[in-house]
Amino acid sequence: MSCIFCDVAEGRTSARIIREADDLVAFYDINAQAPVHILVIPKRHIPTINDVKADDAVLIGKMVLLAREIMEEQGYDRKGYRLVMNCNNDGGQTVYHLHLHALAGRWMSWPPG
Amino acid sequence: MSCIFCDVAEGRTSARIIREADDLVAFYDINAQAPVHILVIPKRHIPTINDVKADDAVLIGKMVLLAREIMEEQGYDRKGYRLVMNCNNDGGQTVYHLHLHALAGRWMSWPPG
Repeated sequence: MSCIFCDVAEGRTSARIIREADDLVAFYDINAQAPVHILVIPKRHIPTINDVKADDAVLIGKMVLLAREIMEEQGYDRKGYRLVMNCNNDGGQTVYHLHLHALAGRWMSWPPG
Repeated sequence: MSCIFCDVAEGRTSARIIREADDLVAFYDINAQAPVHILVIPKRHIPTINDVKADDAVLIGKMVLLAREIMEEQGYDRKGYRLVMNCNNDGGQTVYHLHLHALAGRWMSWPPG
């Protein structure tokens, strides 16, 4: 089965990549829901957050910290931003390769969906 | 300055605590936005995700993994759930002690706020 985010991670499809780390890639969401909407993915194919092992705590933390770093670089740290991770259908997950959303540039309302 | 989530972490205020780990506490959000709405906080006072250091990647990962574990225990892993972390005003942060929201029990719409 092909996976669109594996294709992004491995450079087989075009994406507006912001940063590439050893085990992570950050790029712009093509269906932006805010003036700035980025995604951070692990290069390794992990379908959902349910599939993460206890050993992966550092990987997950690094995903959040990379999103935070990009928000800061782009000048959204003071104003703020929202980080979101969807799991399965009720969570609104549409691509089954783990990804963290970071949304900025507008006020994010509550509830979060 | 008093902090309501430090009070929860240190048992100075009542909260419906679900789990306590060495460095984390999980409890129910009193302003639930879904049938199940939990919060995971570090016991240590960290105002926002901007204040987290690179060394804290494991701590952040553990927050996500604890939320995941509770969602699984409560039977929401298959149906799904949404994890959210708000930073500063645009992100909708209201309590300035780092916290991760986990929402389940209903379909979460898009955009996430």
